[in-house]
Amino acid sequence: MPSQTNNFAYVRGEILPLDNAFLHVSDLAIQRGYGVFDYVKVSQGHPLFLEDYLERFHASARMLHMAVPLSDKALRDVVYELIERNDMGVSGVKMILTGGYSGNGYDPAEPSLVMLQQPLSLPGQEMLARGIKIITHAYVREIPQAKTINYTMGIRLIEEIRSKGASDVLYQQNGVVTEFPRCNFFIVAQDGTVVTPDSNVLLGVTRKNVLALAAKKYKVVERAVTLEDVYQAKEAFLTSTTKRILPVVQVDEKTIADGKPGPVAHALLADLIQLEEEYCRQQVVR
Amino acid sequence: MPSQTNNFAYVRGEILPLDNAFLHVSDLAIQRGYGVFDYVKVSQGHPLFLEDYLERFHASARMLHMAVPLSDKALRDVVYELIERNDMGVSGVKMILTGGYSGNGYDPAEPSLVMLQQPLSLPGQEMLARGIKIITHAYVREIPQAKTINYTMGIRLIEEIRSKGASDVLYQQNGVVTEFPRCNFFIVAQDGTVVTPDSNVLLGVTRKNVLALAAKKYKVVERAVTLEDVYQAKEAFLTSTTKRILPVVQVDEKTIADGKPGPVAHALLADLIQLEEEYCRQQVVR
Repeated sequence: MPSQTNNFAYVRGEILPLDNAFLHVSDLAIQRGYGVFDYVKVSQGHPLFLEDYLERFHASARMLHMAVPLSDKALRDVVYELIERNDMGVSGVKMILTGGYSGNGYDPAEPSLVMLQQPLSLPGQEMLARGIKIITHAYVREIPQAKTINYTMGIRLIEEIRSKGASDVLYQQNGVVTEFPRCNFFIVAQDGTVVTPDSNVLLGVTRKNVLALAAKKYKVVERAVTLEDVYQAKEAFLTSTTKRILPVVQVDEKTIADGKPGPVAHALLADLIQLEEEYCRQQVVR
Repeated sequence: MPSQTNNFAYVRGEILPLDNAFLHVSDLAIQRGYGVFDYVKVSQGHPLFLEDYLERFHASARMLHMAVPLSDKALRDVVYELIERNDMGVSGVKMILTGGYSGNGYDPAEPSLVMLQQPLSLPGQEMLARGIKIITHAYVREIPQAKTINYTMGIRLIEEIRSKGASDVLYQQNGVVTEFPRCNFFIVAQDGTVVTPDSNVLLGVTRKNVLALAAKKYKVVERAVTLEDVYQAKEAFLTSTTKRILPVVQVDEKTIADGKPGPVAHALLADLIQLEEEYCRQQVVR
């Protein structure tokens, strides 16, 4: 692990140096991969759209029958305390809730809440200008609406993604595409409609923001998206908290349109950056 | 966690008291539920059929592109050292291999190997005499051949199992049954054939031993088993390292045969106990 002596984390009720942030091996995350998490981006000292992330964190916890041990007020206080003490710049605060220290290694106990702040590099100008290649893989996440810690498939595919010179993997099942391990997916259809899969996906906060921004300028629809739709699209792009909007120009061996990022992704990225800045300004005014 | 001051565990190269057995929160088990494990039963001081469990542990690790950091000789030495120091009676040694302390919380690092010994209660005479009720749930594990730490579905179903007065949940997909979260499944067909599902299951060591024992007395076949096959069966039972053989007498609302454990499960359990005892005797002779 990287030594970060000035980085503080929250573990089961205590704020302590990240170097001392440990869970006992009886924790159900270690024993049974049982947990949910969420991740909010920090910019100019503000956790962007925190209310949306907290709402989803609670929803994920409920789907796994776990209770978040802190009130929203207390969660927010920890987020802000970590941001202040770590003084990290553009970064992310991750909150993980696990099944807790289980007596028999199977039955859930009092959940463990862990919160950490991690540095974050946004995609560079070159990547945005060139777009990325992605591969596809037949898979649907087990409980797509919940942000569980189960990334077995995504991590197992890292080697294949790299060996094919790609940047990420888009899940599909029977030719219907859904999401990336950590990002949502959009296309711009030939008639200019902005389209994103409507089911078997995590409801990303950036996805929600991009849908709202797109609706101001374009026709927008949430529906099933097939691989054939993707091949015929004018543009394709992914959205996520850490990547914002990243154009996709190649899917497996198929080039999308002319193989270059398009104007819709570009315009929406500018709008999203503006929305983030407005959010920060509003926080300051409060 | 239960305080067990006389219990020793192995964590990333060190044997230490279980109370001090922790992993850093950057570990990929905590960050991403990424890991595999195995579990060997200890009886009379011997890890039963250890060679089979080690082989499967390596196979699981390979499927997740991880290398076990110890040689088989060194793994065995740790297992025997824990057994000797913990002096626990009937118990289990669990070995967990995770994606390690990840710098960015996603990319695998040097794997973390954790080994612990846990007390174990075998099913009591009353449960064996009465058999158990089970429910079914539509699900197939993601990488069924690998013993990953992902038990999200099984643990999420604990409440439903209890609320229905059942003891376990049998996974099925489109009416084809496969396995329990932690056990394999067998039926005895009307013609006396012992049948177990052949695909989308973890290849249990007890399953293998029971198949070999059954083949000495009965016709045995591995094939697809439907829910209809189950309803029509003369007997049904589960097998696992910790439960050995446990008769199943009710599946959802359907009673199997006359609702009582049958002679085949009974005979195979006696044979399995004898096989375990023979294994122990052979270890002593060496």
